Amino acid sequence: MVRWQPDARGRLQQAALALYDERGFENTTVAQIAESAGLTKRTFFRHFGDKREVLFAGSEQLEELLVGGVAAAPDSATPLQAVAEALDAAATMFEQGREYAARRQRVIAANPELRERELIKLASLAASVADALRRRGVEDSAATLTAEAGITVFRISFQRWVDEANRKDLGRLIRDSLKELRAVTAA
Amino acid sequence: MVRWQPDARGRLQQAALALYDERGFENTTVAQIAESAGLTKRTFFRHFGDKREVLFAGSEQLEELLVGGVAAAPDSATPLQAVAEALDAAATMFEQGREYAARRQRVIAANPELRERELIKLASLAASVADALRRRGVEDSAATLTAEAGITVFRISFQRWVDEANRKDLGRLIRDSLKELRAVTAA
Repeated sequence: MVRWQPDARGRLQQAALALYDERGFENTTVAQIAESAGLTKRTFFRHFGDKREVLFAGSEQLEELLVGGVAAAPDSATPLQAVAEALDAAATMFEQGREYAARRQRVIAANPELRERELIKLASLAASVADALRRRGVEDSAATLTAEAGITVFRISFQRWVDEANRKDLGRLIRDSLKELRAVTAA
Repeated sequence: MVRWQPDARGRLQQAALALYDERGFENTTVAQIAESAGLTKRTFFRHFGDKREVLFAGSEQLEELLVGGVAAAPDSATPLQAVAEALDAAATMFEQGREYAARRQRVIAANPELRERELIKLASLAASVADALRRRGVEDSAATLTAEAGITVFRISFQRWVDEANRKDLGRLIRDSLKELRAVTAA
């Protein structure tokens, strides 16, 4: 019988990230992660489909925040304003976990397989945001363009945010990047 | 001894695409592609690393056109204007092959593994365009934002172009999408 463990999921995530960062993603086994968290492999697989999935566990929550944020924007908001509000809402999800996020980015950057998975997650986020914009009546390709630009803004801001030298919060960096996007696309 | 074949590469590409489209990417073997092109498996592997790579053979040429186009833009061009000129140059690479391109998009859309590879190629294109902009003196994140937006414009335009009902040429669709990008990001 498997004993119930408080926050097994969180412990597995912390243990996995520490091991990936120390010895490399490819050199870490699920058995080692489970052992380091004081849990079994079976418990690991109850929470995560595979070794990669541990690092992308928050992406559904992020998607919900973004899609919800777009839907909740006032009717008068332009498509980009709706995305800006959604990004602002999503930023709050991360504010407490900068150290974890920085470590996670380092692990992903070091492994092509993980970078691949991240690209897929970002593409799927952009597609969901575009769908949310279409539900607001935004025309098909305008929705895609705005959503993709928004996700790029998010990605760039996130990278700046986890940089050791950075002192700004994520929401502020997102607003800066949006301003920059408007500047580079101005006719 | 392997007999020299005129345009073995092109014949392998046509044969592969036809088979992928008819029986599905996952149900087609390299042996079948080679046989259908009247060539050997060995010849296939001289030209392509794997079954997926056949479909992405033009991406280096596309990258060269885009990077070259950005570099060749006049000094007075804004970052987005430089990307617009590069996209215009790249469009000429495709004008003759709409039917092939449409079939290729259909095959890619039907297979998650191929969609994954396409995302990676697009991300790598965007990174190269961003680097080309940096070499023009464009600031780091402005370069990324402009390059990503440019690649999204390209992707959307390409999808519209291969649509059966479309009668516009690729260059025109790219200019339309750029106009749309400017409209959605206008403050």
